[in-house]
Amino acid sequence: MTHASPQGLRPAGDPAVVAVLGAGSWGTAFARVLGTSTSPEGARAREVVVWSRRAEVAEAVNRDHANPEYLPGIELPACVRAVTDAREAVSGAGVVVVAVPAQSVRATLESVADAIAPDAVVVSLVKGLERGTDARPSQVCADVLGLAADRFAVVSGPNLALEIARGEPTATVVASTSAATAERVAALTAGRTFRPYTNTDVVGVEIGGIVKNVIALAVGICDGQGLGDNSKASIITRGLAETTRLAVRLGGDAGTLAGLAGLGDLVATCASPLSRNRSAGRLLGTGMGVDEAVAAMNQTAEGLKSVSAIVHVARAHGVEMPISEAMDRVVAGSVDVHHLAGLLLGRDLKSEGRTA
Amino acid sequence: MTHASPQGLRPAGDPAVVAVLGAGSWGTAFARVLGTSTSPEGARAREVVVWSRRAEVAEAVNRDHANPEYLPGIELPACVRAVTDAREAVSGAGVVVVAVPAQSVRATLESVADAIAPDAVVVSLVKGLERGTDARPSQVCADVLGLAADRFAVVSGPNLALEIARGEPTATVVASTSAATAERVAALTAGRTFRPYTNTDVVGVEIGGIVKNVIALAVGICDGQGLGDNSKASIITRGLAETTRLAVRLGGDAGTLAGLAGLGDLVATCASPLSRNRSAGRLLGTGMGVDEAVAAMNQTAEGLKSVSAIVHVARAHGVEMPISEAMDRVVAGSVDVHHLAGLLLGRDLKSEGRTA
Repeated sequence: MTHASPQGLRPAGDPAVVAVLGAGSWGTAFARVLGTSTSPEGARAREVVVWSRRAEVAEAVNRDHANPEYLPGIELPACVRAVTDAREAVSGAGVVVVAVPAQSVRATLESVADAIAPDAVVVSLVKGLERGTDARPSQVCADVLGLAADRFAVVSGPNLALEIARGEPTATVVASTSAATAERVAALTAGRTFRPYTNTDVVGVEIGGIVKNVIALAVGICDGQGLGDNSKASIITRGLAETTRLAVRLGGDAGTLAGLAGLGDLVATCASPLSRNRSAGRLLGTGMGVDEAVAAMNQTAEGLKSVSAIVHVARAHGVEMPISEAMDRVVAGSVDVHHLAGLLLGRDLKSEGRTA
Repeated sequence: MTHASPQGLRPAGDPAVVAVLGAGSWGTAFARVLGTSTSPEGARAREVVVWSRRAEVAEAVNRDHANPEYLPGIELPACVRAVTDAREAVSGAGVVVVAVPAQSVRATLESVADAIAPDAVVVSLVKGLERGTDARPSQVCADVLGLAADRFAVVSGPNLALEIARGEPTATVVASTSAATAERVAALTAGRTFRPYTNTDVVGVEIGGIVKNVIALAVGICDGQGLGDNSKASIITRGLAETTRLAVRLGGDAGTLAGLAGLGDLVATCASPLSRNRSAGRLLGTGMGVDEAVAAMNQTAEGLKSVSAIVHVARAHGVEMPISEAMDRVVAGSVDVHHLAGLLLGRDLKSEGRTA
């Protein structure tokens, strides 16, 4: 099953084996979700192989059923095992979950492309745009793997990884242009406390997850500057409005952004002390430089990496995104965070919504 | 100016005098906003008369320029004075602001109706439905005062009173079916840190402010039960969806609910430890009874009072509002909060948004 056939063709994927590329907090929590699914389909998929590039992480998973650096205090089910060879992880898997930072997706997939079964479904947990190409994760996956659209799904929602790993009730969205693929992935993950809903709006779900990291940076900066909940709620509101404008312009649905993968994800991220992007923003808001803030975090804050690509896409499509523009300037070091509140809240927007 | 003319006709209102009926935290904070407005129109309106039914509150405002019970630590401008006679407050005022609990609007207005100038504009800060009639504040005002629609405005948004009183940056929405009236009220309030935006969707703005209190109760209950941000974000998302359904059914705009008076207000309320409705919910979530929770609060939690009327209106219009229905049952004592998480999160909603 894990070897190519004599003809050199790639093997078929075993639907009962799922590979997870990336052993950060969300990848590991998702492996736990896969390993504890209570749906009939989920219960049949009982081999979850996680790839970690770091030997000590793989060792902790295999020896202690734990990933203490990224998910402290969480026990992983016995069916989750880890490897340090990404090709070994994907070989023969029926489903390959991509849980690496957005800037690593292309290189990671290129290194395993010919080991992925031709019928495998690829599931993205990635929440960032690729710098240079401005590509969404779905586009990078399609580009590297030559995937048909019905072999791709994205999972996104109000999904703080540590809460999911603790078994706290969580809803999410699984989107694929193929409703059947979305339902298959949803069935693999559905459990007592994890509730996936399906959707066919891949663009809307991806954009919601990507831009929310930038809005969370802005909310974090407000925190760092001691601004209150009135200000932060205004930024969340306008942030979702600009996210929705971009998603709709790219072919997504406004309704997706009003749902769990838009509003839900944004609110969870901006409310939680667990959010990396909000935490990164908070550090910036207290006056720390971007490099220092990055160094102070032990995980990628995708918003810092993606914001320039988001602004680039928005400009190319004529979409106004004032909060993302302001964040891009902060990250580039061309505006001081102390001038940010005025920049974010001071837009001369005389009327909102219906005006006659 | 404050006396009826010899013919017994009501006097004209002086546009420079604003009455505020109600000296709770929001009424008092709004009086401060009126008294510190920096717009040309606001700076001209320099007499703000607050009615408090309690002599000690009025005395504190007049003697100490403070309302320590409701806005601790806040100094009020010298142009704000208080009276204990509501008729005295409204007599001759060009603008009458209603800042009493929803269940007191009718009686309060009835007691002052013939003292309100016939050209006065009435501004509602009220966020609840009237029990028995299911009327929105705009409807109660029109009913009691025989107001033409262009003499009514509602103010609502992400407006935690204490933050506004502290001068923290805040945006809000002023809605009137008359754009000119909305702009006039906006001009009276605009200041260095208070930014009003105008809108003509009175129904949408009122429904946003009313239903958010019920959703905040649900979020508070989640808090009290130790649920995390993933769950709370899902409830906020679905709560805004049911609020939007109701508003649209009653003639409001979905866009209003996606804005500051819908999403913004809901997020601020649900995020803040200052929110009364969320605090009331938290008490319920720890197992306290409704009567006990009410007794433990020193201000009205409008959600507890309005929820039955909201559910009644929703049913009469065929609008599905599962979270409000669940809250109605909790408040009525017919469902235990320990069964609530399942009730709120367990709806069998297989797909969300676009499905083909």
